[in-house]
Amino acid sequence: MNSDIITLAHGSGGKMMQELIAQELLPLCDEELGRGLEDAAELQVPGERLIFTTDSFTVQPLEFPGGDIGKLCICGTVNDLAMRGARPLYISLSLIIEEGLEFNLLRRVLASIGNAARETGAAIVTGDTKVVQRGKADGLFINTTGIGEPLQQRSPGATRALVGDKVLLNGPLGEHGIAVLVAREDLQLQSELESDCAALAGLVEAMLQVGGEAVHVLRDPTRGGLAAALNEIATASQVGIETEESYLPRNPAVTGACEILGLEPLEVANEGKLVAMVAPEVAEKVLAAMKEHPLGRQSAIIGEVVEGDRVTMKTALGTSRIIDMPSGELLPRIC
Amino acid sequence: MNSDIITLAHGSGGKMMQELIAQELLPLCDEELGRGLEDAAELQVPGERLIFTTDSFTVQPLEFPGGDIGKLCICGTVNDLAMRGARPLYISLSLIIEEGLEFNLLRRVLASIGNAARETGAAIVTGDTKVVQRGKADGLFINTTGIGEPLQQRSPGATRALVGDKVLLNGPLGEHGIAVLVAREDLQLQSELESDCAALAGLVEAMLQVGGEAVHVLRDPTRGGLAAALNEIATASQVGIETEESYLPRNPAVTGACEILGLEPLEVANEGKLVAMVAPEVAEKVLAAMKEHPLGRQSAIIGEVVEGDRVTMKTALGTSRIIDMPSGELLPRIC
Repeated sequence: MNSDIITLAHGSGGKMMQELIAQELLPLCDEELGRGLEDAAELQVPGERLIFTTDSFTVQPLEFPGGDIGKLCICGTVNDLAMRGARPLYISLSLIIEEGLEFNLLRRVLASIGNAARETGAAIVTGDTKVVQRGKADGLFINTTGIGEPLQQRSPGATRALVGDKVLLNGPLGEHGIAVLVAREDLQLQSELESDCAALAGLVEAMLQVGGEAVHVLRDPTRGGLAAALNEIATASQVGIETEESYLPRNPAVTGACEILGLEPLEVANEGKLVAMVAPEVAEKVLAAMKEHPLGRQSAIIGEVVEGDRVTMKTALGTSRIIDMPSGELLPRIC
Repeated sequence: MNSDIITLAHGSGGKMMQELIAQELLPLCDEELGRGLEDAAELQVPGERLIFTTDSFTVQPLEFPGGDIGKLCICGTVNDLAMRGARPLYISLSLIIEEGLEFNLLRRVLASIGNAARETGAAIVTGDTKVVQRGKADGLFINTTGIGEPLQQRSPGATRALVGDKVLLNGPLGEHGIAVLVAREDLQLQSELESDCAALAGLVEAMLQVGGEAVHVLRDPTRGGLAAALNEIATASQVGIETEESYLPRNPAVTGACEILGLEPLEVANEGKLVAMVAPEVAEKVLAAMKEHPLGRQSAIIGEVVEGDRVTMKTALGTSRIIDMPSGELLPRIC
């Protein structure tokens, strides 16, 4: 048996799986809550309301500039909690591994998971490991499911946008999608573009401190990009959204790559961005708080919520175009 | 685009994914909590303690006698909660679908998920859908993560077995593993064997009602079978366990299939069984409660907890053999 790769025995429920769990996975887990070798963890929760979210990650390649599937899965789950105004408390970690995966690659991913969880303060408390035969998965899929504590009485939500709200964005679009695509296709682009993969819980906490419940909507524009996020909010809140192209923070490397590849930056995935709808009277204060945070230096007000049901963007030429819900295959396996 | 199969566009974050979610997935979700199209759900929880568990399911084939991956994922997660003495409250549902999966197969699986969740009273409140290219997964993988409410102050746990405890089992071993194996290999066995796949929350509630905190340990012998479960408990509680072969409830079809296939029934997976360690003074009462429950008719006391660190079984010949932690590949993809 080759100890450098994962074998079916690592998922069989027997000795090899016990060793994998004991040596590689339990060290990631919370010392008090997650090391009891139970199939379920017993948790303390602070109040009667919780936020709960799940995501499976199938990104390909597993490692890309700016991150890997390990950092991505923790950040993605923390961000889904943060978008409902919650501080991350507990995370479960479930691996589906393809037989033959390099053990060292798995170790690097697990190290990323540990680092990202520590940085966000979330405790990994329970998990699961499955191994499937060669050719039956693609290296590694990870599910993370998170429990968070809401920071305020009324959580931000996609249905809460109000006409007059300002639309805020914390930085340039498309870095994650383009970085993954370039790594996957081994494209030779001049720029060194990195994924924006980051946990946004701290940024959100700073925004809520000054904006409170006047922060109506928070959404991370992942799959489908800003175009999908804005359309989902417009539908859920039954409003229109007007944005202006010239207000968008920019990363020239992304703009350049999108032109070469024929992609629309508004539809490309992000993993460290959020769009917010906030009441106009607190918009400048919230924007200032965002700009003070390391993950919000390039924040901008990019538009506002209006009557209607359409998402539009004013172009540099002064015309207005409709931003539709993306359709078709877009970029698969981006998260 | 062929509407009879799942395509990459169903996982892209665009219109097709919205339709899949709206038409097939949201109807499974809790009406109040799970239909808001948020990436995270807001939940009410009854107290300060929760039980939390995750599992990814990679069973192959997706449908087998007695169940399918949908019934299995709900029962598996409910059972992990039940083994810590918890009533299931909330479940998250995350799908990784291989491009090309038949839409009708997916619909059957989702219907099973809905039925199983309804039967157990657990609410599906949040989810995620990913689609990977043909050949990059094996039809369908499902992650379910569950939150449960502990029914008593001190939860059953693998570390709590005490010398003198009686060991109880709710029925014959190996039905799930053999049923899946027969379906997978298309073996022609005479008997019609069905998986025991079932949610054990009701049985556990009945046991705790009469046994209370004297029910020290509950464990569902899934991967690695009873052999793995008993060894894990012995290690966690630092005790030995003595069982007697003649006390084991039997299903002759499993015994026969194991003989033909050269398998050890103690190492074959179950999905509707539990093993319990209970204080001797309540053992008969707990056994009686189990026998009154539809999922415990064949329950039996199969042994007791002793000093030491070994799991042993007295054979029909009066000799005693050591039941080791299973090793090697066992049966992959059984859950």
